Amino acid sequence: MQQAIAILDSGVGGLTVAKEVMRQLPQEKIIYFGDTARTPYGPRPAEEISRFTHQIVDYLLQFQPKMIVVACNTATAIAIEEIRARLTIPVVGVIHPGARAAIKTTRNHHIGVIGTEGTIKSSAYEHALRQISPQIQVVSLACPSFVPLVERGMFRTDETTRVVEESLSELRNYPIDSLILGCTHYPFLADIIGSVMGSRVTLISSADETAREISTILYHKGMLATSNIVPVHQFFCSGEPRMFKSIAQTWLNEQIKVTPVVWQVPNII
Amino acid sequence: MQQAIAILDSGVGGLTVAKEVMRQLPQEKIIYFGDTARTPYGPRPAEEISRFTHQIVDYLLQFQPKMIVVACNTATAIAIEEIRARLTIPVVGVIHPGARAAIKTTRNHHIGVIGTEGTIKSSAYEHALRQISPQIQVVSLACPSFVPLVERGMFRTDETTRVVEESLSELRNYPIDSLILGCTHYPFLADIIGSVMGSRVTLISSADETAREISTILYHKGMLATSNIVPVHQFFCSGEPRMFKSIAQTWLNEQIKVTPVVWQVPNII
Repeated sequence: MQQAIAILDSGVGGLTVAKEVMRQLPQEKIIYFGDTARTPYGPRPAEEISRFTHQIVDYLLQFQPKMIVVACNTATAIAIEEIRARLTIPVVGVIHPGARAAIKTTRNHHIGVIGTEGTIKSSAYEHALRQISPQIQVVSLACPSFVPLVERGMFRTDETTRVVEESLSELRNYPIDSLILGCTHYPFLADIIGSVMGSRVTLISSADETAREISTILYHKGMLATSNIVPVHQFFCSGEPRMFKSIAQTWLNEQIKVTPVVWQVPNII
Repeated sequence: MQQAIAILDSGVGGLTVAKEVMRQLPQEKIIYFGDTARTPYGPRPAEEISRFTHQIVDYLLQFQPKMIVVACNTATAIAIEEIRARLTIPVVGVIHPGARAAIKTTRNHHIGVIGTEGTIKSSAYEHALRQISPQIQVVSLACPSFVPLVERGMFRTDETTRVVEESLSELRNYPIDSLILGCTHYPFLADIIGSVMGSRVTLISSADETAREISTILYHKGMLATSNIVPVHQFFCSGEPRMFKSIAQTWLNEQIKVTPVVWQVPNII
């Protein structure tokens, strides 16, 4: 199947998924959409997150993708079931892959989850974890200041270290052995988060795990790319493309072309 | 869905998958079949492996399982496509999960595979790895003496250490950073294999990864168990059940009941 995998996010966070898909499935073409004009999604009302997600999916459908990946935890938590119900192609979110990986990793059944306010408020990870394994103890924490830091490209500044330390201090009182990075932006801050939490806590990146689930599902549906031609990926963002392009090129370690998309409906927060 | 997951293997090897399914999906009921009367499968002709696998699947279908797991690399390599073609329930093998996990793990694109003669001769891992990522370099090695050691319960003897050292010595000349344990019996010997290969090589257990793929597929098909009742698993083996029971109880760390099954057709090697 030579159709693309369409990946969407509120901004640059989904690039952590895109990078892993490129690494684990180098023959697959990717179409990426970052809604940078309206990031962050985390603090928005559920109705708005749902509407935005449907709008991006509609935009991506023009390319006839073989799969939609909602590479945003907030959008997955709020809208994945609706999106799945209205499409015939597979729709993959980032919450269940992260939950499954955490269950595989934990030895003491104590799992931490950090995410945006929207994701944590939805209890989507708790629900996913308990649906699979009722004995799991979950502690969840919203970290609303992380996404804006990542969208501004501040991955290693002193301010970022200070914010991460302050945000996670409460979490260190719990006996968790695994911490789900429940937002695709957080792998950009993984080094700092890892050193704050210490070596006894394993960080679970939904990004890596989602890429593997994409591979699993494409294989089981007989939809893996069969061509050996190196795919040319396409990138779209709704905001000013310069910062998006700079972050994307650094993260993916390759030159890319970014097409700006202007939403017809103005965005009023 | 309260139906069981049926897991089959040539002997005790598939218990490495069963144990991970119990850990990662504690609500799922398992029906396990070990064909201990006819183990090992590795050196047998493909036609015979295929016939045995179909026969076990037919036996397991009487329990109306919701999924068949071919937890034997040799049987997966030879017969999975045939089994999948004739059933409407999902059929999961152990080769693609292992391949996907190795691709996720490797950083230098050099992957080693060890397995039975049947598995290595089939090139099933090479095919799976290259189908997903053509740039991967694969080195494969058959280790026919490992399965009989495991079926006799010799996990930590001096003889086992000597056999593992001798068998793997050639493999140490290759720059692999990941080694697929391409036989579900091999996790029983993981400690010895790991110390022989050294810390720069990551061992990939298909068992762990298969359990996660089972979780992924059941979730995406809406087939996860929904009851909170602790499931009672069932175990069957075709040979004398005492050794099977002893190994299974030690490995699973729980008491189990084993039902012996006598094949109507005598087995002549």
